[in-house]
Amino acid sequence: SGLVLVKNPHLDLMEEDILYHLDLGTKTHNLPAMFGDIKFVCVGGSPNRMRAFAQFMQRELGLAGAGEDVADICAGSDRYAMYRVGPVLSISHGMGIPSISIMLHELIKLLHHAKCRDVTIIRIGTSGGLGIKAGSVVITDTAVDSSFQPRFEQVVLDNVVVRSTELDKDLAEELLACSRDIPDFPTLIGHTMCTYDFYEGQGRLDGALCSFSSEKKLEYLRRAYDAGVRNIEMESTAFAALCGLCGLKGESCRFHLL
Amino acid sequence: SGLVLVKNPHLDLMEEDILYHLDLGTKTHNLPAMFGDIKFVCVGGSPNRMRAFAQFMQRELGLAGAGEDVADICAGSDRYAMYRVGPVLSISHGMGIPSISIMLHELIKLLHHAKCRDVTIIRIGTSGGLGIKAGSVVITDTAVDSSFQPRFEQVVLDNVVVRSTELDKDLAEELLACSRDIPDFPTLIGHTMCTYDFYEGQGRLDGALCSFSSEKKLEYLRRAYDAGVRNIEMESTAFAALCGLCGLKGESCRFHLL
Repeated sequence: SGLVLVKNPHLDLMEEDILYHLDLGTKTHNLPAMFGDIKFVCVGGSPNRMRAFAQFMQRELGLAGAGEDVADICAGSDRYAMYRVGPVLSISHGMGIPSISIMLHELIKLLHHAKCRDVTIIRIGTSGGLGIKAGSVVITDTAVDSSFQPRFEQVVLDNVVVRSTELDKDLAEELLACSRDIPDFPTLIGHTMCTYDFYEGQGRLDGALCSFSSEKKLEYLRRAYDAGVRNIEMESTAFAALCGLCGLKGESCRFHLL
Repeated sequence: SGLVLVKNPHLDLMEEDILYHLDLGTKTHNLPAMFGDIKFVCVGGSPNRMRAFAQFMQRELGLAGAGEDVADICAGSDRYAMYRVGPVLSISHGMGIPSISIMLHELIKLLHHAKCRDVTIIRIGTSGGLGIKAGSVVITDTAVDSSFQPRFEQVVLDNVVVRSTELDKDLAEELLACSRDIPDFPTLIGHTMCTYDFYEGQGRLDGALCSFSSEKKLEYLRRAYDAGVRNIEMESTAFAALCGLCGLKGESCRFHLL
């Protein structure tokens, strides 16, 4: 049916669903009227960048108000920022798996309550590249954990549940085809490694703590490259797992800063 | 010596240390002049609340400029917000362990470069209470994971390192003593449970996914209570582990929203 799925029998029994961190709710807002025609959701870490992206989309789509400021739909909360231009929603998710997970749970419920159909969700942003040209864009085929495995370990109460982290292969190919229309836009499809930590987890030598040598770091990153990893960030496994389970066609697309 | 410790031999070899997510650096800023006399650092999730806390401290300390707006020291970055009033630094850390970890790595390096001495760090904010009166403040003695163990599992490259999560017991008692001077301010010392997920991880029945019954949830929360847990949040184990390793006298203090 193309509808966004929630997999929670308790939701139907609730009189009101409050999306706490988005400052929205089923009683306070008419979600189908506000969001029913949304077809694309773009998410990224930084609120400023997601506002800039919304303004960019406004110009690209030739929509009225182009050049003007866009309003933050979640202005009543400082956890996330959300902008809407035409059929596109642009939302920030902060840094790390716990932060993006809270946003995705509430976004998925929002799209469900709004009865949205055939929604595509794309994560955009920066990442650390691995053995690729600076400025390259990596489109993720599969998100992997710090052992290069295509899995997301979700703790449910005190049990660990392992979830798949594959993303939509057709969408990845579609995005790659788009990149070919743009000159000097190096783009590739590869695995994205997702870590829980920016410093010790990603082999950085410039944290407050560092217990490994630069040789050990290089050996680890070489193993990651050999396993197909082309970039490193901090949200992709949770993003892939949640989108997959809830019927959202999802893709992760990261620009590699040096 | 009371100095803040960094445990990274690579730092001394670096010409410049850029604190990327704070928009500060050793070449672009005179960190000893800006921060050398800092004695207290208060951190919390929400940027708006940490600004409000800085303004509150300005009034409490009777400092010039009270009632006026305070300037965000990290205004060039939208990852975190930082305010300074007298010897107190007030910083936001976003939601979840990965987000607070990035901030703490850069904060610890900042305090180290600034040659700060005898710094106390206190985490403040909201949490979910467990079997306590709404409006109570929980001062954490030990942060525990979702299996109620006093440990933080840090992934370093692809190895898991287990770290202690005890907090400063004297500081906890000192804060408890302060609370006794204030009427109607229910305060207690207890364990704080730290989860990676707000919905499935904390036994909430209102996420986009939920695979457990309300009985199973209650059974889990009862076990947590029996293990000494009095509140639940998403950052305390990483906070306790990093502060402990770097010689920061640290405490976590959470207000229990209903």
